[in-house]
This record gives sequence, C-alpha cells and structure tokens, in this order.
Amino acid sequence: MSGYGAFQVVAREGLARAGELVTPHGVVKTPAFMPVGTAGSVKGLTPWELARLSPEMVLANTYHLLLRPGVEVVAELGGLHRFMGWSGPILTDSGGFQVFSLSQLRRVSPEGVVFRSHIDGREFVLTPESCMEAQRRLGVDVAMALDVCPALPASRKTLEQAVELTSQWARRCRQKLPAGELPLLFGIVQGGLDLHLRRKALEALLPLNFDGYALGGFSVGEPAEAMWQAVGVLAPELPAERPRYLMGVGTVRDIVEAVAAGVDLFDCVIPTRNARNGLLHTSRGPVVVKHARYRTCPEPPDPQCTCPTCQACSLAYLRHLFLAREAAYVVLATVHNLHFYLTLMRKVRSAIIASRFAELRQVVLAEQAAAVEAS
Amino acid sequence: MSGYGAFQVVAREGLARAGELVTPHGVVKTPAFMPVGTAGSVKGLTPWELARLSPEMVLANTYHLLLRPGVEVVAELGGLHRFMGWSGPILTDSGGFQVFSLSQLRRVSPEGVVFRSHIDGREFVLTPESCMEAQRRLGVDVAMALDVCPALPASRKTLEQAVELTSQWARRCRQKLPAGELPLLFGIVQGGLDLHLRRKALEALLPLNFDGYALGGFSVGEPAEAMWQAVGVLAPELPAERPRYLMGVGTVRDIVEAVAAGVDLFDCVIPTRNARNGLLHTSRGPVVVKHARYRTCPEPPDPQCTCPTCQACSLAYLRHLFLAREAAYVVLATVHNLHFYLTLMRKVRSAIIASRFAELRQVVLAEQAAAVEAS
Repeated sequence: MSGYGAFQVVAREGLARAGELVTPHGVVKTPAFMPVGTAGSVKGLTPWELARLSPEMVLANTYHLLLRPGVEVVAELGGLHRFMGWSGPILTDSGGFQVFSLSQLRRVSPEGVVFRSHIDGREFVLTPESCMEAQRRLGVDVAMALDVCPALPASRKTLEQAVELTSQWARRCRQKLPAGELPLLFGIVQGGLDLHLRRKALEALLPLNFDGYALGGFSVGEPAEAMWQAVGVLAPELPAERPRYLMGVGTVRDIVEAVAAGVDLFDCVIPTRNARNGLLHTSRGPVVVKHARYRTCPEPPDPQCTCPTCQACSLAYLRHLFLAREAAYVVLATVHNLHFYLTLMRKVRSAIIASRFAELRQVVLAEQAAAVEAS
Repeated sequence: MSGYGAFQVVAREGLARAGELVTPHGVVKTPAFMPVGTAGSVKGLTPWELARLSPEMVLANTYHLLLRPGVEVVAELGGLHRFMGWSGPILTDSGGFQVFSLSQLRRVSPEGVVFRSHIDGREFVLTPESCMEAQRRLGVDVAMALDVCPALPASRKTLEQAVELTSQWARRCRQKLPAGELPLLFGIVQGGLDLHLRRKALEALLPLNFDGYALGGFSVGEPAEAMWQAVGVLAPELPAERPRYLMGVGTVRDIVEAVAAGVDLFDCVIPTRNARNGLLHTSRGPVVVKHARYRTCPEPPDPQCTCPTCQACSLAYLRHLFLAREAAYVVLATVHNLHFYLTLMRKVRSAIIASRFAELRQVVLAEQAAAVEAS
C-alpha cells in the first residue's frame, strides 16, 4: 500500500505498535493524541501556539462546523486548514455523537437524521452522503463515517438497531468517499460493552476497506476497568495493517492501557477541559491550581516540564490568574496540559521503538496510582 | 541628572518631544503607551506574548494587587516582575482612582482612606505611606503618589478639598519615597477642567521634585475637545525636564493631540477592552469583527499590519471565533490591537525625531476622521 492513507508499523512491542500514517498534510507518527479543536480552534490557543505544540494531528468536529460558521463558509475560505491556520493533519469526527448528545433530535430514519441546532434551533439534515460531502468540503485529511449513537443505557434491541443502521450508513459513506479518494475514511465500530455485537459491527465494516478503524462509544460512563477489558479484546481484532483509533479516550492510564492493546490514535477533551477547570497534569500527578498550598509557591506546575508555561510561571502566579479569572490563565494551562499529553505520547512511541514500553507502562501506572493515593 | 530616573529629551518638534527615561528595568523610549496589566496580567496575554509585543513599559494596579493576591504574596515571590514574568519596566497606579470608583468607600480622612474590597468586602486602609510601601514591595520601576479622586460631577469646594488633600498626601508620599530611592515616584495633578485649580495643584507638587508629573482625572466623561484644550494648556506647564504622563488616555486622536502638547506617557484600556468587545483598530479605521460583511472575508483585519494575528487569521476566522466565544479570540484580538497602538507610538516617536510629526499628525487625524465618516 502506498500513497495517502498508507500505514506502516515501524516497531512492535507485544501488541503495542509504533506506526506512520501518510496524510496529505504530513505523516502522523503513532501512537498519537489529537488535541480537540471542536469548532476549528483548540480552546485558548492561537494558531502559532498550536503550531509550537506540534501535535501529530488535530481533531475538529463536523457537527459544530456545520452549525457555525457553516461548511460553505470554511470551504469558501479554502478549507479548514487555511481557515484555522493549521498546516498539519486534521481529522474530523462525523458529528454522529453530537447529533445524538447535543442537538434536539427530531427524527432518525434509514435515510439519515433530522435535528435542531443546540445554538439557535435551526433544523439540519445529516445523511451519510451529506456528512461525507461536508468533510470533503472541509478539506480534512481523515473523515469519520456517520454513526448512530443511542443514548445509554439502551436496550439490547436499541443497540442492535443502532449497529445495524451504522453498518448500512458505513456502506453509503464508503460509496460516497471510495478508497483512493480524499479525505481518508475511517469506519466506526459501535456496540457498547457487548463483544458479540462489537464483532458483528466490525465484520460489516471489513469488506468496505476503510483507511482506519475506530472504536466508538467508549468512556461514556462505564467503569474504566470494563473499558480496558473490552478494548483489550477488541483492539487486537481490528485490522493490523490499518490505524486503530479509540475515540474520546482518555486519561493517561486509559491511553497507556489502550496502546498496550494495540491502539494507535486518541482524542479527548481531558487535557484542555481540565486546564480550564484548574487541574494541571504533571509527572507528580494532578495539581489543583486553586489550592491554598500554592498561594506563594515559587515553583512551576512541574519542575521537570519543558513547556513555556513552566518556564515562565510559578504556581502562585497561575493560582492568582485562575482565581482572578484572567483570560491568560486558560492559555497557560492549556499549553501546559497539552504539552504534557503530547510529551507522554512521544515517550510512549520512543519506548515502543526501543522495546521499553512495558517498563514505561509500569512507571506511568505507578505514578498514576501514587498520585491517586496522594490526592 | 544621571542614574535611575534620568530623563533626556532627545528630539523636539514644536511642543512634542522624543525622550528616554532610565529605569532599573530598562530605558523607556517616549512617547510611549503602556498596556494595562491591572492584576499583574495584560488580559489574554501569556508572558511570552507580552514580551513579543515589546512595550516600553507596562502598567499594573496597586489597588487590584493589594486585594488579590496581596502585596505580601507578590513580594514573597520576588516582586511583580518575577511574579508576572515580565522583565521590562513597570509602573503602578497608586490605587487612588480605584478606591474612589470601584470599592465601597468607608471613610476619607487626612490620614488616609478606609475602604472595602469590591471582591469580597474585606476592609483595607490605604495611607500615603502604606501606598508607597506597597509599591516599593511590589518592586516596580515607577510608583504613583496616592491621590484623592472625588466622584464627578463635584462641587468646586469638593474639588478644592480633593486637590488640597492630594497635595498633603503628595508630600507624605515623597517623604516615604525620597528622591534618589526606588521606585521612581511621579506626582499627580488633579483639579478637573479648572485650570486655576490645576495650576494650584501643580505648584504644590513642584517643590517635591518628583521624577515625573502626571495629569490625572481626564477622560472621565468630559467632551474630548475640553480635554484636548485643557491638556494643550497644562502639559507645557509641567516641568520640561521630567516625563509627563496623561493617565488613562486614550483614543488614537487623544494620544496624538496630547503628544503635540508635549505629553510623554500614556496608558489606557481602550485597545485591550475594545479587542475583547469585538472592535479591532486598523489603519483603515475600526473594524467591528462580528459584522456580517466579514462572514467569508479572507483578508486579515489590516492588510498593512505585521502582527502575528494578521499573518495567521482572516476576518472570517476571527468573526467565527468571536461569535462562538472561543477563548483564542481574546488573545488574537488583544495581540492585534496592542500591536496597532505600540506601532503608532513608534511611528510618532520616529516622526518627532525626523521632524515630521506635524505631517504624521495630520495623516492620522485625517484617517480617524475618514473612519468616523465611514462607520
């Protein structure tokens, strides 16, 4: 396989892999974590601040861009890369998850979904075809197939019907965006914690020859152990020659466990949302920035960290900015937390290549456990 | 005169001057505009973003820092420069203005003022001595004397009493912070639009040999023409061998008119507050970023501007970020507006040195008039 979409596993340790995915905007070195830029902006980051953090790929959301500013606006401005001033790879979620969680849902039919915007109530229609067309017009590197995400808990019948419709839609998505065309297209495996249903969903996707396979519908309220177990079984069953993407996950521990099971791609709001809410990730565990113990603390959030925030700011200053609701706080905290996540991913990848991932995994898990103990 | 506080006029054109003020954290090239970093942060800017904009001096506020995080916190962390990660000159306002405008005022006596914090109602006392001590402990380059700012409109008697008390307090401030010690100390001339009262206030300050003289109490609701006229008369009467500072001013036109009258220093929230509220300053006049005409506009806010925002962002993208209330918008707009103001000041200074300020003044005033016409 060559050209855009080519995925090469360059190193393996157990089930964990280090890979390279070729996209029109660059080679994505995996395992990789995608910062979330929902509406075409990673919250708080200017284009140059995002570029400096240098993530392998950025995630944006079709649902949000469809509603505001509108796909036609982004297309008229030359596509999402130019619009948001980011020249690296972009993956867009299909919007399926948001339609079912954020919008006022009007009607699901085999044809597609009719919903109302959560912003202004305007009515929109999303079909597999229009969803692919939207992502194509956004000019992204990787599109996601449109999936059905019923609210949980759901009956077995509801889940089965959702998987069935997702499979039908996956076929229509692939027809609209055939192999060899751009953007690359990833299929999404749904089915909750039911391994039987998940396998059935996967079987329906395999003949469609997607450029990558995603596990959707995890980290939606189930216990972490249940997710680790299911991902541990399912990830190795996804095609080995294609990138595997665990959507919306997760904590440091989630990511390390999933990498150990053979997952290549991640996205999650945890580092960016935690930053805004006053929680900083560090090598010594989470730091709650508003804590009185940091009132006069001259140290940076993480003395081992090389990010610009840790070079420039004491915890006392960050605490002050957070309590005073200063706008600069969001930028400083977001830069730090994303730097922490992206650095973790680089360490994970290097460790796999050096056959030291098992060791790193133990160190990270011990750090996380100690941090939980201490907090 | 030599050492810290030395002020040299390096060029003159009419009453306008280009000067250099020597401070412990660098030489301030005047005319200069100080971005407002009220609580130890220019709203939305990380320390490195502020450093890149490279203002000659930054303003912070004693009142705000006294309330939060507390002067003792900043002092314990090595002073305001280290606290906020800014290595250039800092001037602090005394807090007089904020005590009279923001706080619940409890009592003014010859001794000082007792007030309650607007944040949490805690009671504070500010005397000329404690105000000087606070600014000394903050470790700033330039302190402002504590002044009395009665709410306007006020009777002549109230204004006279305010000027009288401000004069007494100025003496006590100078005793606490004598010439030759740090920080440098500027006296403040009050008196509203009453030139007689202003002159009386100035006469009381002159024997105290301040390191600079400020005109306070302008741009507080009076017509712009009235301010230009009063400043036009008063600025030339301030000591020529010391920097002259017009506090809290102003618009581009205000600044150009005041420079023409011989003012050297300015501070104002206009560029930063306008940025947050969606108004961008450009060479073609103000741009209201949310305007529908920019929906698909591929141009930057100002095609002539060299700021990072104009290099990276279209008006369409900025409009989208503003309407979606994305945190990055504040950063991008603030960087642009401050860059516009700081560039204006550099042009003004170069023009004075090149004896072309009269020409530049006409061009800027014509631009401003055309922009008002067009809006």
